[in-house]
Amino acid sequence: MIDEKGILFILSGPSGVGKGTVRKALFEQSTNLRYSISMTTRRPREGEVDGVDYFFKSRAEFERLIEQRQLIEHAEYVGNYYGTPKQYVEDTLNEGKDVFLEIEVQGALKVRENFPEGVFVFLIPPSLEELKDRIVNRGTETEDKVKNRLLAAKEEIEMMDAYDYVVVNDQVDHAVSKIQSIVASEHCKRERVSQQYKKALEADQHDA
Amino acid sequence: MIDEKGILFILSGPSGVGKGTVRKALFEQSTNLRYSISMTTRRPREGEVDGVDYFFKSRAEFERLIEQRQLIEHAEYVGNYYGTPKQYVEDTLNEGKDVFLEIEVQGALKVRENFPEGVFVFLIPPSLEELKDRIVNRGTETEDKVKNRLLAAKEEIEMMDAYDYVVVNDQVDHAVSKIQSIVASEHCKRERVSQQYKKALEADQHDA
Repeated sequence: MIDEKGILFILSGPSGVGKGTVRKALFEQSTNLRYSISMTTRRPREGEVDGVDYFFKSRAEFERLIEQRQLIEHAEYVGNYYGTPKQYVEDTLNEGKDVFLEIEVQGALKVRENFPEGVFVFLIPPSLEELKDRIVNRGTETEDKVKNRLLAAKEEIEMMDAYDYVVVNDQVDHAVSKIQSIVASEHCKRERVSQQYKKALEADQHDA
Repeated sequence: MIDEKGILFILSGPSGVGKGTVRKALFEQSTNLRYSISMTTRRPREGEVDGVDYFFKSRAEFERLIEQRQLIEHAEYVGNYYGTPKQYVEDTLNEGKDVFLEIEVQGALKVRENFPEGVFVFLIPPSLEELKDRIVNRGTETEDKVKNRLLAAKEEIEMMDAYDYVVVNDQVDHAVSKIQSIVASEHCKRERVSQQYKKALEADQHDA
C-alpha cells in the first residue's frame, strides 16, 4: 500500500485583511480540505462551540500541551493563548487528506519551520493592489499620503516573500476561487505526481 | 509604465492522449489565453481555414522561416513541416497576455530551451493512472500484460520529468478544469506577484 500524504495549506496575511471571512466562505463551498481548528484559553463567545470554532482549554491544560510539544505553533494575544494542535494536522495528512490552517503571520512562519513542504498563501488587501495599479498608471495623489502608503506597502511586500502564493482579497468569492485553484493545481505538481507513480512502480518491483 | 509579461503555457503529452480535444474544449470556455496557431506545409483539409487551424505555407516559405530563426521549434512528420512561429508568441507575451501552445513532446522540449520560464503541462492517459491505482490496490492481472504495461508506464513517467504539472485526461472536462486551475494559480505565484509589486515601487522611487 502506498501512502499518499495530504497537502498542508496555510492561509495568512496582514491583520485585518479578511482571512477569517475568506476561510469561512471557502468551507461553505464543496471542498475536500479539512480545517484544523485552533486551540485557545480565551472564553467561548456567545454561540461558539468547543471543537467547532475552537478547542477551548484552561491555561494549565494549554501550558501542559506546550511543554509536551503538542502544538505546531502558539502565541499569546491580550492575555490569552492561541495555538495549532499538532496531532490533528499530522494524523489527517497521514490519512491522505489535505489540511487547511488560517493563521496569523507570526504563526505561519513557525509552521513553515515544522512543515517546509506546506503550501503558504498570503492574502493581501485590495489597497495594496490598487496602490500598485496607481503607481503603474501614474495616478495623482498628495505626496505625503502616497509616501505613507508606500511605506506600509513595502512592509507587506516583504512579508509576502516567505510565501508560495499571493491572493488579492478584492472580493471574497474571487479570493476563494483562487485558493481553490491553488489547491487543485498543487495536486497536479509534477514532483508530487511523478513521485507517487515512481513509488507505486517500485513497490510493485519489490513485491514481484 | 510597468510591463507585466504574459505567461506561456505548453500542453504536451504522449501521442494519442487527447491533447487536441482538451485544447479545443479549453478554448470553447471563457479564457484569457491566446492560442498560438501552428504553421505547416501540409495541405488544408476540408473545412480548415488558414490562420485559424494552421498557418498554411509552402515548403520554400517554411524553410526560409527556419533559416531566419522565426520558429521556436519545428519538426517534419510524414513529409510535412510543422512549427511554432516565434513572433506571435513573443508579441503576445509582451502585451501581457498569456499564450497557450499544444505541441508534441519533442517540440515541447525545444520550447523549454527557448522559454525556460514557460509553464509545462503534461497530459497523461487514464490508463497510467489506473495502472498506478491497480498496483497500489493490488489488483490481479496476467503477469505478461502487467510487465508490458509497466514498461510503457515507465517511459511515460520519465517523459513527464521535464514538466511542471501532470494532468490526467480521465474526462475532458476534468482535464480542462485542472488546466484552468493551473493557469489561475500560476498568476498567484509569489515570485511573479512580488516582482511586479517591487518593480512598481522601484519605478515610483526612480521617478520621484
